[in-house]
Amino acid sequence: MSDYSKFDLYSVSKPADFVLHVQFNRPKQLNAVNPDSYRQFKQIFDIAEFDKDVRVIVLSGQGRAFCAGLDLNAVAGNITSDDDDDEDSSRKAIHQHAFIKEFQECIGRPHTINKPVIAVAHGPSIGLAIDILSSVDIRIASKDAILSIREIAIGMAADIGTLQRLPKVVNNLGWLKEVALTGRNFTPEEAKEQGLINSVAETKDKAVSDAIELAKTIAAHSPVASHGTKKAINYAIDHSVPDSLEQIAEFNAHAVGGDLVKGAMSARAKEKPTYAKL
Amino acid sequence: MSDYSKFDLYSVSKPADFVLHVQFNRPKQLNAVNPDSYRQFKQIFDIAEFDKDVRVIVLSGQGRAFCAGLDLNAVAGNITSDDDDDEDSSRKAIHQHAFIKEFQECIGRPHTINKPVIAVAHGPSIGLAIDILSSVDIRIASKDAILSIREIAIGMAADIGTLQRLPKVVNNLGWLKEVALTGRNFTPEEAKEQGLINSVAETKDKAVSDAIELAKTIAAHSPVASHGTKKAINYAIDHSVPDSLEQIAEFNAHAVGGDLVKGAMSARAKEKPTYAKL
Amino acid sequence: MSDYSKFDLYSVSKPADFVLHVQFNRPKQLNAVNPDSYRQFKQIFDIAEFDKDVRVIVLSGQGRAFCAGLDLNAVAGNITSDDDDDEDSSRKAIHQHAFIKEFQECIGRPHTINKPVIAVAHGPSIGLAIDILSSVDIRIASKDAILSIREIAIGMAADIGTLQRLPKVVNNLGWLKEVALTGRNFTPEEAKEQGLINSVAETKDKAVSDAIELAKTIAAHSPVASHGTKKAINYAIDHSVPDSLEQIAEFNAHAVGGDLVKGAMSARAKEKPTYAKL
Amino acid sequence: MSDYSKFDLYSVSKPADFVLHVQFNRPKQLNAVNPDSYRQFKQIFDIAEFDKDVRVIVLSGQGRAFCAGLDLNAVAGNITSDDDDDEDSSRKAIHQHAFIKEFQECIGRPHTINKPVIAVAHGPSIGLAIDILSSVDIRIASKDAILSIREIAIGMAADIGTLQRLPKVVNNLGWLKEVALTGRNFTPEEAKEQGLINSVAETKDKAVSDAIELAKTIAAHSPVASHGTKKAINYAIDHSVPDSLEQIAEFNAHAVGGDLVKGAMSARAKEKPTYAKL
Amino acid sequence: MSDYSKFDLYSVSKPADFVLHVQFNRPKQLNAVNPDSYRQFKQIFDIAEFDKDVRVIVLSGQGRAFCAGLDLNAVAGNITSDDDDDEDSSRKAIHQHAFIKEFQECIGRPHTINKPVIAVAHGPSIGLAIDILSSVDIRIASKDAILSIREIAIGMAADIGTLQRLPKVVNNLGWLKEVALTGRNFTPEEAKEQGLINSVAETKDKAVSDAIELAKTIAAHSPVASHGTKKAINYAIDHSVPDSLEQIAEFNAHAVGGDLVKGAMSARAKEKPTYAKL
Amino acid sequence: MSDYSKFDLYSVSKPADFVLHVQFNRPKQLNAVNPDSYRQFKQIFDIAEFDKDVRVIVLSGQGRAFCAGLDLNAVAGNITSDDDDDEDSSRKAIHQHAFIKEFQECIGRPHTINKPVIAVAHGPSIGLAIDILSSVDIRIASKDAILSIREIAIGMAADIGTLQRLPKVVNNLGWLKEVALTGRNFTPEEAKEQGLINSVAETKDKAVSDAIELAKTIAAHSPVASHGTKKAINYAIDHSVPDSLEQIAEFNAHAVGGDLVKGAMSARAKEKPTYAKL
Repeated sequence: MSDYSKFDLYSVSKPADFVLHVQFNRPKQLNAVNPDSYRQFKQIFDIAEFDKDVRVIVLSGQGRAFCAGLDLNAVAGNITSDDDDDEDSSRKAIHQHAFIKEFQECIGRPHTINKPVIAVAHGPSIGLAIDILSSVDIRIASKDAILSIREIAIGMAADIGTLQRLPKVVNNLGWLKEVALTGRNFTPEEAKEQGLINSVAETKDKAVSDAIELAKTIAAHSPVASHGTKKAINYAIDHSVPDSLEQIAEFNAHAVGGDLVKGAMSARAKEKPTYAKL
Repeated sequence: MSDYSKFDLYSVSKPADFVLHVQFNRPKQLNAVNPDSYRQFKQIFDIAEFDKDVRVIVLSGQGRAFCAGLDLNAVAGNITSDDDDDEDSSRKAIHQHAFIKEFQECIGRPHTINKPVIAVAHGPSIGLAIDILSSVDIRIASKDAILSIREIAIGMAADIGTLQRLPKVVNNLGWLKEVALTGRNFTPEEAKEQGLINSVAETKDKAVSDAIELAKTIAAHSPVASHGTKKAINYAIDHSVPDSLEQIAEFNAHAVGGDLVKGAMSARAKEKPTYAKL
Repeated sequence: MSDYSKFDLYSVSKPADFVLHVQFNRPKQLNAVNPDSYRQFKQIFDIAEFDKDVRVIVLSGQGRAFCAGLDLNAVAGNITSDDDDDEDSSRKAIHQHAFIKEFQECIGRPHTINKPVIAVAHGPSIGLAIDILSSVDIRIASKDAILSIREIAIGMAADIGTLQRLPKVVNNLGWLKEVALTGRNFTPEEAKEQGLINSVAETKDKAVSDAIELAKTIAAHSPVASHGTKKAINYAIDHSVPDSLEQIAEFNAHAVGGDLVKGAMSARAKEKPTYAKL
Repeated sequence: MSDYSKFDLYSVSKPADFVLHVQFNRPKQLNAVNPDSYRQFKQIFDIAEFDKDVRVIVLSGQGRAFCAGLDLNAVAGNITSDDDDDEDSSRKAIHQHAFIKEFQECIGRPHTINKPVIAVAHGPSIGLAIDILSSVDIRIASKDAILSIREIAIGMAADIGTLQRLPKVVNNLGWLKEVALTGRNFTPEEAKEQGLINSVAETKDKAVSDAIELAKTIAAHSPVASHGTKKAINYAIDHSVPDSLEQIAEFNAHAVGGDLVKGAMSARAKEKPTYAKL
Repeated sequence: MSDYSKFDLYSVSKPADFVLHVQFNRPKQLNAVNPDSYRQFKQIFDIAEFDKDVRVIVLSGQGRAFCAGLDLNAVAGNITSDDDDDEDSSRKAIHQHAFIKEFQECIGRPHTINKPVIAVAHGPSIGLAIDILSSVDIRIASKDAILSIREIAIGMAADIGTLQRLPKVVNNLGWLKEVALTGRNFTPEEAKEQGLINSVAETKDKAVSDAIELAKTIAAHSPVASHGTKKAINYAIDHSVPDSLEQIAEFNAHAVGGDLVKGAMSARAKEKPTYAKL
Repeated sequence: MSDYSKFDLYSVSKPADFVLHVQFNRPKQLNAVNPDSYRQFKQIFDIAEFDKDVRVIVLSGQGRAFCAGLDLNAVAGNITSDDDDDEDSSRKAIHQHAFIKEFQECIGRPHTINKPVIAVAHGPSIGLAIDILSSVDIRIASKDAILSIREIAIGMAADIGTLQRLPKVVNNLGWLKEVALTGRNFTPEEAKEQGLINSVAETKDKAVSDAIELAKTIAAHSPVASHGTKKAINYAIDHSVPDSLEQIAEFNAHAVGGDLVKGAMSARAKEKPTYAKL
């Protein structure tokens, strides 16, 4: 296993074969995110992408909250009003743009890694937490989760992925606009009804163990197949049907091979296949 | 407040700060739409777009219906069969194209204005009414609403927005195809289940007051933030995730500023912020 | 009626005016698909596209299953592992790509024909069956249907349409990723809740008769209008709203005409219109 | 002929059948553009679009210059530096965005009208003049033309069409970047070599008469065909080949008809066809 | 070698290893195209696509012309004016659309086959000839070639590829619009200057032998590499740079292999490599 | 100035205010590229992007060649034939894909940095050298430059940018296909004629000094304006005209400000403006 111990703002463990559990570990701050933590976030996925012992990643938060959003204190320098410094507004805007792009790239890492990511939302899961949730593949919540696209309530439009990815994730654009424009809280059950949450567990512990079980099921499959499946679905949400059919044809031109032989033979023999690492 | 009194086919009022209420006002015709009414429709939004006292728009219909669809009598000249006039079919088609494009541009104004629009459907809400509903952001219906993508039942494919926008709004392409291909009525409850309606109220009056309450909630937020939120979601349904992330980064390069400072400080102080007009 | 009798792997009939019923007819193989059957599948739709007596197509399977997926024996030549032959992996991949593209083109025919297709899923409906279902417009299931995006369980990513079309069909990307990444079975009721199935009937016979009734309702409408409606919705899932508005404007530039006159007059007279063949 | 006499900043005439000649008519200001003039510019094309007596438009400038660019005095209110007023930078940017969009829409009218537009550049043709030239279809210059993408030399990126359309018009992206990044002058001959200018005439008068002759040649053809030809080429620069093939198929589904019969028969008989107005 | 002898409207030969020479063979009709000939055209490429002995295709015309365009007599049924038959204009347009789509698909086959196609234009090469030329990869002309996008001169917009592909092929959108809107003849030299023709030979015989020499040079390279090179360039003209980089990465994921080893070693040894068939 | 001294494979200097000169510095290997060198290449641009003292970058090569292409020895591990190791072809392809993507990202850095990059090609400039040249903005060559898209001659399709970017850079798709499919050398003069090279200098030294002079001219302009100009042109080659007009409107919403005031006033006063750092 690669070494994830240097990431002090996260707790990283391996609860099962091929399953990596990444936990936000700033419980006192309710796992609010600052530049250090989003940079570490990206670096963890950068390593996991090429870690042959990782096939599925579970993401959760230690303490009372999954994530209480952006740590406003930490980014105060980027959200000052006009008269706070002497840079002109053109230059300030170009710097702000660069700041946002790096932030997006870090938080969007679960979306761009071709290994499935399952997140567990519990307790306060607001603002940036929704950006994070929109970037993963499968979302499980515990009953105590408090969800909110909160950004509008503090005077800004969400800009780290929520408004960009959720229109292609949830099943109701009107509902999405309503919660994004009001900033109101919504429950895990409401979120499940709208397709934002896959399932709701009684407690956070149960949600985490559900996530790990699900991760184990996926990790038992061919890593070539899960890589290709995630890549194909994400490609399809951004491209036309003909382009997407071409993409998977090119991928499966090489990816259909030994694992299909093994998988099909095992299925016929009702045995459990063991696939080589990827 | 800008002057909306010249629009004789609409009743326009201001039921709350920053909330504009636009009502179809041809109750005898069940608010069926003709060229005069769709041109006025566009003009109202053209003014509202730059009306600093408007942040959210509520749209409803006076009388027994939200909108009974297209006023076929009024557009008879464009739907004549081959032998009705002496223009050749090429020229007729090019003129028909121009007619449709203007019609689309007028009815699509709620989609292109960067201020949230909430519509209330009650009574007959059929045909063109669905094009109108698909163009707004949030839809509330009363229980008596009768909904139908009726165009196919009179021999044509819907062409003013329904078939173009609903595939990205509702949560079930199969259901959409079924109702679009049969032209059958569906209830507000069915529409809510499929994501076409946000909520169902007992009566039209209740639906309108719900809409206005919702509008007030949104209008209390930063107009910079609601402008950006609507723009970002609509952009995302038509663009890839990377393009959408770039769009909001460019927007927030300038739009994250004084309102975030005010919003965040007010949130911390548990006070209600007051934002400058936009 | 065109002659469909040469297709020995299908049973093709005409249960009602303008309705074609195509049945998979390899019951012993649970209608598993091989190259012969997917080529015949395409050819049937190629004929039906220009068959003036066909306006709607119903698709179902004879025997115990709608379709048990790909007939792995039949395509073994394309899924051999590296050492099975002496062609280098570059050439093998280019040939595999061509094989997949032809397969996609055949199974995707219901998507590209501008006549509505209604499928009935019963019994085992797994793997390739979901690719087929994702290619049609409306899906009805019987209670005994067993559904599964099974490909991952045999070591490959689905590549004939499931992962490409379902992200735009179902209402929950997280659910889709879960079932595609685990390969688990799901029930027709679960599928209906997620928008993959329009309705669930008690038995296969009831599902087929529901499908035919629905087909008759659609077939009674103008074939110009149903052609345009299906084309517009499918266009919209792959294009932006402005592009889609232009597409329908160009189509209706010529398609709004005699059928609208007839349809509107019949509606006013509360009579049933009869439309000319297309 | 429609009435164009109300446009005091332009001189509009009809030098030949079906040919409209629009001349910038602020010679003292070297035809520099201000909001009044770009709004009138759009309005002229709005009328010409539906003027059955206009098939081709020639655009030129009276006096010493085609167009000396933006009239900076006129738009000073939009280019003030930070401390010039008390609006915060977020609001100022959103207003600036709206200002630019209207400006783009007006100057881009030659691009969106489906009638060919031929421009004649002479004398100073700098800055906004290039935005205008990039928006028309065919460009003729006189030898004395002085061309420059001048915006960078006054501290801004060109934003009214030059940088958006020229990458698809000229034949050398490197050259385009060089002149856009340096702001240097270039000659009509250099512009012709790079595909920005169709031909270079000795004098402005000759350039105008060349343009009118070319306009007459085009105007003698079927207006259905020239409408479709311009529309198809402009569609193709923004869409994929398959999408573009579908667009022209839909257009020609109705546009191939009487004019082709007449055109083909006239060609065979070596006669000059006369086409009905569009 | 596959059997191409059944195509009576073409002469097909193999002048060199891996080079197929396809000649239009209706010299009396100046190789004007009718439905039989465009269907055979497609069928020849359908076979050549999987003919392991073909790597490059040369296309030319026997007799006095490369191709004199569409055989108007042969398609008269599709270009009748309104009163010629009793089908309504909606249905006629939908049938016309289907006719155009098949025509496009046939003539566009050189574009969609992943083997380079080199065409030789000589003598009259007008109208549909340009659609054909725009569909191939490399164009050589003899000095006597007469080129013209002639469609506008007979009352229609070109709809089989010229207007769709040339905006991405030639280097001057203004020139393209000029010749497409006037229908005027242009010389091979002018075409070469604008990027429509690669080179001009003194005679047709020299042009054909130049084409065959060029074909031999290409055919001596790895067929995996030429397949990938053509595919990548054509993909790039229709997609963004990031999408195109992903496409070639996926292709070269499998296509970089044995041929690179062989090619690189041969290059180092200054030997001529021999690549296995594809 | 930031510290670029750690990059041992490059020589980095600052020949003028705001101009960075980056030289490949492996003259013995003719500046052939290996993983170390392409990673350092990216890192230099990563630093330069935020180096306020850099506005324009000049790229050239020390020694006899600009760049002799890929150092095949260095990447031998990725181009082995099938039997060289025991990894199956699916896994090998996925790893190969990751290798190509990182390589593309490094070499493509000049394209993604919003500061103009000018390259000087001299001597052998083949294979990967063209990928590099296609990634920069402006290209100057000396007369002794030997240019070639050489990849096909060693059995592969170019995959690091040449085939992806050049279709949008050069002015002749037929010519591009010819040189990409034959792998033949072409001269700087031929490259200039086709739009691949901006200008040709007598010697390498002259080419470098021309590049630096050009860089100085650009660097004297507003860095906000040059940033926006490059960004807008690159955006336009990948997006539709309407999308591109929206992009620049959003950018100039904040970027038109102080520098325009300063630039316009300086222009009027015929003074040289001094712009603040960005």
